[in-house]
Amino acid sequence: MNKASVICIGVKNMEESFNFYKKLGFSTKEEWNNQPVVFFDTVGTKLELYPLDLLAKDIDETNPPKITTGFSGITLAHNVASEKEVDEVIELARKNGATIAKEPKKVFWGGYSGYFVDPNGYYWEVAYNPGWKFDETGLIVF
Amino acid sequence: MNKASVICIGVKNMEESFNFYKKLGFSTKEEWNNQPVVFFDTVGTKLELYPLDLLAKDIDETNPPKITTGFSGITLAHNVASEKEVDEVIELARKNGATIAKEPKKVFWGGYSGYFVDPNGYYWEVAYNPGWKFDETGLIVF
Repeated sequence: MNKASVICIGVKNMEESFNFYKKLGFSTKEEWNNQPVVFFDTVGTKLELYPLDLLAKDIDETNPPKITTGFSGITLAHNVASEKEVDEVIELARKNGATIAKEPKKVFWGGYSGYFVDPNGYYWEVAYNPGWKFDETGLIVF
Repeated sequence: MNKASVICIGVKNMEESFNFYKKLGFSTKEEWNNQPVVFFDTVGTKLELYPLDLLAKDIDETNPPKITTGFSGITLAHNVASEKEVDEVIELARKNGATIAKEPKKVFWGGYSGYFVDPNGYYWEVAYNPGWKFDETGLIVF
């Protein structure tokens, strides 16, 4: 595990944040259309917007982390090329003292993911998305 | 402005987090030596560790944001090639509704930086570091 593939910012108002980051110069071919998630194309990382309440539920659908008590609203994602690799990274994190917030499992968007919490309480998603490819440097190519 | 150059994680215990991320596979040539800041080399982004209290003070030395009330402990940085560009990006953010948490100024490590707060309360540093270079894709090269 040697990269953060996506920075996901849990936002209060998708349209407001979409317009804000677009006006700042972040690149996307999309127009605002009430889409549930937005990715901006960046050099090296992807910047993603996603509703804050849904992001908390993505970590644990039945018992989402309380946003006011420790969940900062930002998660980092490490994307790998197979379900097996997701399991391996989660086990590596567990072995090194991380709390597993979500054991790896198939998720509604067609992929496979889990979450661990680092020693500071920050959430990392470890994910396999069968629809995503990587370039030769390991960056996600949409 | 189209990238996040650095993910800085404000950490509670530098040595613990250094060992944690190193064991997970994040790449660095450094050994633990009580250094005040650590950068890991990543594909596309740099992952930085820095003490949480000092990170809050970096935003505003005299009146650091209270960590329990809104500052998540994570900042994102956008690095540019000159002081003039820092000013331009801060003005662009201001014009688009961002609060400026720190007006751009020369800082103790030899660079020039400011901070704005996005509509969700997240902190972005806009910085010029005369000691840093970029490769042809815009990534920082240490």
